[in-house]
Amino acid sequence: MTGAIFDRLTFTADGLIPAIAQQHDTGEVLMLAWMNRESIQETLATGQVCYFSRSRQKLWRKGETSGQTQKLIELRLDCDGDAILLLVDQTGVACHTGRRTCFYTALRDGALKEICLPEVSPDQLYRQTT
Amino acid sequence: MTGAIFDRLTFTADGLIPAIAQQHDTGEVLMLAWMNRESIQETLATGQVCYFSRSRQKLWRKGETSGQTQKLIELRLDCDGDAILLLVDQTGVACHTGRRTCFYTALRDGALKEICLPEVSPDQLYRQTT
Repeated sequence: MTGAIFDRLTFTADGLIPAIAQQHDTGEVLMLAWMNRESIQETLATGQVCYFSRSRQKLWRKGETSGQTQKLIELRLDCDGDAILLLVDQTGVACHTGRRTCFYTALRDGALKEICLPEVSPDQLYRQTT
Repeated sequence: MTGAIFDRLTFTADGLIPAIAQQHDTGEVLMLAWMNRESIQETLATGQVCYFSRSRQKLWRKGETSGQTQKLIELRLDCDGDAILLLVDQTGVACHTGRRTCFYTALRDGALKEICLPEVSPDQLYRQTT
């Protein structure tokens, strides 16, 4: 069923493709992460976003530890098939720092400023165990 | 003035970093492209977005040929400094196909569908010469 998409995607030499997660209703850009073929297949099969962690070199089921999952609303690809846009419904915060978005640092007047505060402490986020 | 940002950014081995362009007022994700240090410096100096073209291996001053420029409203970086979010004011369309956004292909009911039409023909876009 989802084979069609792989004919249109271009992966890096490492088998990865960048994916932007955007909150589907507010338009907020939450994060940029990477997917591989397997994580795309899993995301489409389960409806829950799964990335590929470059640092851990394994599937990263978003929210598996923190509970801050991303429900897939729609997957889009760009004109040359080398980037993915995931419209998602984010449970809680997207960022491991406890902020809603990972893009909380802005360059303003020549200096970097944090423009949003954590909504939850990282300790609290990762204390959740199953 | 902008040195602070480079202390916080992590580039790939090729000296690149992915950058998401988002229309600042509507929240529309327009495209994902790549920047290098020089293109970031130029973008900040001129206020007009400049990428690095991986296919042409040179600076890509967005809209230089087509006239579809992106005025920088704000540059943000993510929590681990390996992705950039550019809030921009897009003149006309962002995509070389003549569509407003490059992310015009959606996976719906297991098939890829084009969900927006070109607003201008590519021929017209690239006919403009100075």
